[in-house]
Amino acid sequence: MVRINENYAKLPGSYLFSAIAKKVADFKEKHPGEQVISLGIGDVTKPLAPAIIEALHKAVDEMSAAETFHGYAPDLGYEFLRSAIAQNDYKDRGCDISADEIFVSDGAKCDSGNIQEIFALDNKIAVCDPVYPVYVDTNVMAGRTGAYNAEKENFDGVIYMPCTKENGFVPELPSEKPDIIYLCFPNNPTGSAITKSQLQEWVDYANKVGAVIIYDAAYEAYISQEEIPHSIYECEGARGCAIELRSFSKNAGFTGVRLGFTVVPKDLKCGEVSLHSLWARRHGTKYNGAPYIIQRAGEAVYSPEGKAQLKEQVAGYMENARAIYDGLKDAGYQVFGGLNAPYIWLRTPDGMTSWEFFDSLLARAHVVGTPGSGFGSCGEGYFRLTAFGTKENTLEALARIRRM
Amino acid sequence: MVRINENYAKLPGSYLFSAIAKKVADFKEKHPGEQVISLGIGDVTKPLAPAIIEALHKAVDEMSAAETFHGYAPDLGYEFLRSAIAQNDYKDRGCDISADEIFVSDGAKCDSGNIQEIFALDNKIAVCDPVYPVYVDTNVMAGRTGAYNAEKENFDGVIYMPCTKENGFVPELPSEKPDIIYLCFPNNPTGSAITKSQLQEWVDYANKVGAVIIYDAAYEAYISQEEIPHSIYECEGARGCAIELRSFSKNAGFTGVRLGFTVVPKDLKCGEVSLHSLWARRHGTKYNGAPYIIQRAGEAVYSPEGKAQLKEQVAGYMENARAIYDGLKDAGYQVFGGLNAPYIWLRTPDGMTSWEFFDSLLARAHVVGTPGSGFGSCGEGYFRLTAFGTKENTLEALARIRRM
Repeated sequence: MVRINENYAKLPGSYLFSAIAKKVADFKEKHPGEQVISLGIGDVTKPLAPAIIEALHKAVDEMSAAETFHGYAPDLGYEFLRSAIAQNDYKDRGCDISADEIFVSDGAKCDSGNIQEIFALDNKIAVCDPVYPVYVDTNVMAGRTGAYNAEKENFDGVIYMPCTKENGFVPELPSEKPDIIYLCFPNNPTGSAITKSQLQEWVDYANKVGAVIIYDAAYEAYISQEEIPHSIYECEGARGCAIELRSFSKNAGFTGVRLGFTVVPKDLKCGEVSLHSLWARRHGTKYNGAPYIIQRAGEAVYSPEGKAQLKEQVAGYMENARAIYDGLKDAGYQVFGGLNAPYIWLRTPDGMTSWEFFDSLLARAHVVGTPGSGFGSCGEGYFRLTAFGTKENTLEALARIRRM
Repeated sequence: MVRINENYAKLPGSYLFSAIAKKVADFKEKHPGEQVISLGIGDVTKPLAPAIIEALHKAVDEMSAAETFHGYAPDLGYEFLRSAIAQNDYKDRGCDISADEIFVSDGAKCDSGNIQEIFALDNKIAVCDPVYPVYVDTNVMAGRTGAYNAEKENFDGVIYMPCTKENGFVPELPSEKPDIIYLCFPNNPTGSAITKSQLQEWVDYANKVGAVIIYDAAYEAYISQEEIPHSIYECEGARGCAIELRSFSKNAGFTGVRLGFTVVPKDLKCGEVSLHSLWARRHGTKYNGAPYIIQRAGEAVYSPEGKAQLKEQVAGYMENARAIYDGLKDAGYQVFGGLNAPYIWLRTPDGMTSWEFFDSLLARAHVVGTPGSGFGSCGEGYFRLTAFGTKENTLEALARIRRM
């Protein structure tokens, strides 16, 4: 008689963004005339850049002729893409990462959910609070946590590291020793960044206690300040303790195109076992590579034209971030983030809970954001707005919020 | 101190196709002048059909303008694709499967590896022997099996169901009761098919013992005989016990395009828990949807033009299958499969082991196939050839084998 994975039953309610989608759908049904603006889910709105469109068309044409057709991709991804990544994202920044340490995938969400599989179930994980839900939920599903504690709004057996106004939303080293540490900088949801010296402390700590850092750098393209590292491998010793996740979703607008990659340095070991070889085995056994045409689109991200066009695209989103940040601050809100990240993290006014503010914003301004409490208990009393809307919608949403 | 998932250490050697690739690379290095023909890995060679190319170009153009750009896809896949699948693959065949029971993914390999996650670790799995390695390996990695038994060439704690010449390569009901049963028909690697009445027996058995059947129907497009079911849902009671995996890789040449889907009927339950809701949760938490442009390509598979072009494409591969089957039979080989599947399964001559025949074929005919023993101990003494080569290469390979 078949039995289910009972760990799924530990997960409370539905995935945050499904819950929001339901609330918005209900509102729209009751108020069919109203124009709802979403600055909620972190989805992009600008079309793909011309250099990427051109690369896609070219690759599609290749697939139409037997001589240039591409079947199964190499396990790790095509050499042309891995080399472009190694050169542009790493070597050009002084990071010692080679092409064969890069695993191309269909996105950082999948990788961030799958990477835990190569570790034992009795490892203890540490996460920021608030946190991108996927890190925790996928560990819950695997059985690496205890039960959900409804009162504390968190899972037993997980080390939560508070990210608060007081610590600038950068966690302190935990008192309890973790085995696997999830860090995401520039941060989703708080929009905060970590300086190189702060990140170096984490690398030193991980090397000292024998922990692995899973470093999610999906938002690195939004960094505007010099002292903020784009990769954890800018820190000394990171090759011995860190795995880095990257995405094309936010730097190139690939949310609906699907491309990302994970870096596992070859000298990252657990005893005698190379984590690179474990991830290679996992990749080879459970995954069949990203589509050829999409990998060609990824390559175009690194062409001179692609780089110039995407720089402009990112700058456009960051203008939105600046407008939201300045506008809300001017209206008396306490506002964070937005400087090195496409997220604005604001304190809810008048002691409202995050969901109360969500409901009020939807009802009064017809604007959708994301309740901070959906990312963890330390997110209670906060609210996330994204800079990924169109300029027009962003300014209109801002005007409506200011009129509230 | 981080600890690895020790289950990975149970996996012997490398993934079958990586091992073959290495041998072939070594041969080519030593014999640079020789033209090696591969009828090994099941990769297609024909370019994408014109209807699919057209759909891809159109979708790429949509991604180039803000008004028609598509970001994150819906969790389950786009309605346009799920509806086309439900209508063409199920309703038109009299199967009661609706669009919201279909989960679009980036391929059947991923789904067949991931589906085990929703089940408890103490379930017992049953697999055919020989078998597509992914079913077993992913269960090993999850910890659902015992150790590898080198002498028996299999894993402790797994029910292996011999598929032999004697039973027509269709397994008998196992004496030990399984919880999860993997079946793949038309079969990889043996090329055998299962009749509707044989499959009905399995459905009745699963319903009786409370097991779930994971039915891999990736090769259904190659069925030529009336009495062979294209879907397990053609059998009565299958909605209560079966999950079906489908792929666009072989019916539409999408090995490098990446698209597939999994069907989980809503009335498939384990106690009170719906497996549909578990898989939806898994999909929503760990996956971000197949690319929009690829889902549009999938839709084109079901257009009148797409259907006509792909029917011709499949027929072309099946001409190869027929040529290999007839040619080898004529040359005195014992040959199986090839009638409802793109695989030919042959008995190695002169009592050779599968790997001995592999080496001999590579050395003497410069042809690459897949050793049957790589798929399980009952595959020893057999060898798989695929019909996915070009017509020219297939005939040339056949001529070389006949000259051996």
